[in-house]
Amino acid sequence: MKLIPTLAVATGLLAVPAHADPLPSWNDTDARSAIIAFVDGVTDPAADTYVTPDARIAVFDNDGTLWAEQPIYFQLVFAMDRARVLAEADPDWASTGVLEAAAAGDMGQVLGGGEGALLEVINATHSGVTVEAFQSEVRAWLEKARHPETGMAYDEMVYQPMLELLGYLRDSDFSTYIVSGGGIDFMRAFAEEAYGIPPEQVIGSMGEASFEIIDGVPQVVKQPGIAFVDDKGGKPVGITRDIGRKPILVGGNSDGDMAMLQWATAGEGPRFGLIVHHTDAEREWAYDREGPVGKLNEALDLAPESGWLLVDMAEDWATVYPRP
Amino acid sequence: MKLIPTLAVATGLLAVPAHADPLPSWNDTDARSAIIAFVDGVTDPAADTYVTPDARIAVFDNDGTLWAEQPIYFQLVFAMDRARVLAEADPDWASTGVLEAAAAGDMGQVLGGGEGALLEVINATHSGVTVEAFQSEVRAWLEKARHPETGMAYDEMVYQPMLELLGYLRDSDFSTYIVSGGGIDFMRAFAEEAYGIPPEQVIGSMGEASFEIIDGVPQVVKQPGIAFVDDKGGKPVGITRDIGRKPILVGGNSDGDMAMLQWATAGEGPRFGLIVHHTDAEREWAYDREGPVGKLNEALDLAPESGWLLVDMAEDWATVYPRP
Repeated sequence: MKLIPTLAVATGLLAVPAHADPLPSWNDTDARSAIIAFVDGVTDPAADTYVTPDARIAVFDNDGTLWAEQPIYFQLVFAMDRARVLAEADPDWASTGVLEAAAAGDMGQVLGGGEGALLEVINATHSGVTVEAFQSEVRAWLEKARHPETGMAYDEMVYQPMLELLGYLRDSDFSTYIVSGGGIDFMRAFAEEAYGIPPEQVIGSMGEASFEIIDGVPQVVKQPGIAFVDDKGGKPVGITRDIGRKPILVGGNSDGDMAMLQWATAGEGPRFGLIVHHTDAEREWAYDREGPVGKLNEALDLAPESGWLLVDMAEDWATVYPRP
Repeated sequence: MKLIPTLAVATGLLAVPAHADPLPSWNDTDARSAIIAFVDGVTDPAADTYVTPDARIAVFDNDGTLWAEQPIYFQLVFAMDRARVLAEADPDWASTGVLEAAAAGDMGQVLGGGEGALLEVINATHSGVTVEAFQSEVRAWLEKARHPETGMAYDEMVYQPMLELLGYLRDSDFSTYIVSGGGIDFMRAFAEEAYGIPPEQVIGSMGEASFEIIDGVPQVVKQPGIAFVDDKGGKPVGITRDIGRKPILVGGNSDGDMAMLQWATAGEGPRFGLIVHHTDAEREWAYDREGPVGKLNEALDLAPESGWLLVDMAEDWATVYPRP
C-alpha cells in the first residue's frame, strides 16, 4: 500500500492541491484570506475544524450574489418580454390592465401595482406550458435579450469572482447549491452552463404544477399560482426540504438572505456567512439600505456581530464580469 | 498517459467492474437478466444506449418497494405510538375523538375515519417540533418498536434484493433517490443508514414548516398542514421540483407509482420501469388489486404494454430480508 501515494501523485490520479491561486479575480484582501482560511480549515483532516465532504454544503443566493440584479430582477425582464410575445400571438391574452401594461413593456405601471400585479404577470407568463418548453423559451430569450445599460447578455452578467469561488469550493469537495427567490425552472435553464450547478442543486420559488397526459405524452405542466416562495424565512425551509441538512457556507447579498445566514451560521462546527456588498458604482451598481431590488439593511446591521464576511465589491474584486 | 491504466488497476485506484455477482439475492431469472442488461447498456460507452453518469438517475418508491408496508404503513404505526406518548405527557393533548382513538392505539377507528382522520393524526403527531428533534424521535422509535407479525425492527424489514440493486446502481454511477408518499423528515431519519441514500436524495410528502428563532436559536419547525403530497401525479411533480430532470429508471409497487412510471419511461433513450409485485404470502405478503395499502391494480394492467418489469417476489428473490 505504500506505493499508492507516490504512484497516484506521479500519474496525477489524486487531486493534488495545485491551486497556485484559486481565486485570481479576488484582490489580496482580508475577504480573500478569510475564505481561503475557512476552506483550508474544513478540508484539513488534521484540523479540529475538519468537515467530512458529505457535509461540505455551500448555498448561494442568485440575484445580486451570483449575477447582477439591477435595475430590476432579470427574470422580470423575461416575464415582460414574454408577455409581449404572448400578446402578439393572441390579441385576447392581455385580458387585464396589468397584463396590457406588461405586454406594452410598461415596467413602471407593473411595479406600481405592487406584489399583486407582479404575481399576475408571473402567473400569466410562467404557466400553461411544460417545464421543458418553458426552459427552451428562457434559453432562447437569454440568447437574444440584452441588458439596457450594459448591452451584455444577461448570463454574461455573472460575477467572475463568484464563479471562481464556486469552482474552488467544488474542487475542495463542496456541493454548491443555489437558494434563490427566483423561479426554479427559470434558473435551471442556465445554471448548469453559467455556474456549473446541475438542476438538482438549484432551489428556488415554485409555481403550481400538474401531471398531465397530453396526446398520449406524460408531462409536467406549469400552472398559475405560487406553491412556494424561497425568500426570507422560506430559504431555511427550502433548504431543509430539498437538502435535508444545514449548509456550512452561505452566500447572499440582501435581507432576503438573512434568515438562511442566521440559521446556517448558528450551531456547532465551522460555519461561514458571506454577503456581497454592492459598493461599486463604477463597474456595477452601488446600493444597500434602500430600493426595490436587493435591499440590504437589517442583514448589514447584523453582519458584524454575526461574523458574516462583508465582501466589498469595489475593494475585494479585481474583476466583476468574466468579459470586461 | 499510457501508464495510467496499468498503474491504476495495479494499485486498485480505478473502479474495476469486479462484480462477480452484483445481485446475489436475485434468482437467475428474466428479471435479474433484464436489470443487468439495462445497466450494461447505459454504462457501455460504445453502446448506442449509453447514458452519461449525470443523467443516470434512478428513483424508488419506499413503502412496499424498499421496505415492507403490511399490515399498515410503518409511518402510521409511528404516528399512533407517538400519539400515545404525547397523550401520556399531556392529558389535554387528545382533544378530539380521533386523537383519543390514536392515543389508545385503536387503529381500526382511525382508519375508519378516512383521510380526514389520518390527516388529523399525522398533523398532531408530526408538528410543533423542530425537524432535528422529530428525527431523533423517529430514530428512538425505530430502536425499540417491533413489527406485530414478524417481531422484527421496522428498519430490518428492508428488502435485501433492493439493497443490492441500489448498491449495484450506485457502483454503476447512478444517483439513487427515494420518491415516496411517506413523510420526507420521517424517511430521512433512517434512509442513509438503511439504504445508503443521503437526505438530499430523499423526496417525500411534506408538512408545512416555518423558520423561527426560539431562545435565540434559529430553527425550522414542523407545522400542521400538508404542503405537498408526493403520491400519484405528485411524484412526477416532486421529481421535477427536486431533481429537475427525468429519471431513466423507476421502481415502484403500487398505483401510487403509476404516474412516475408512465412519465419516466416515456420519451427518448433507454428507460426502465420496475414494479415489485407482492406475490410471496410465505416470506412476506401476497397482495395487489385490493386493500387499503399498496393497491396495484391499474399499473398491473398497464405493465405489459408499457414494458415495465414485474418483479415476482416469490420467483425472483432468493432472499427477502437481510436477516432471515
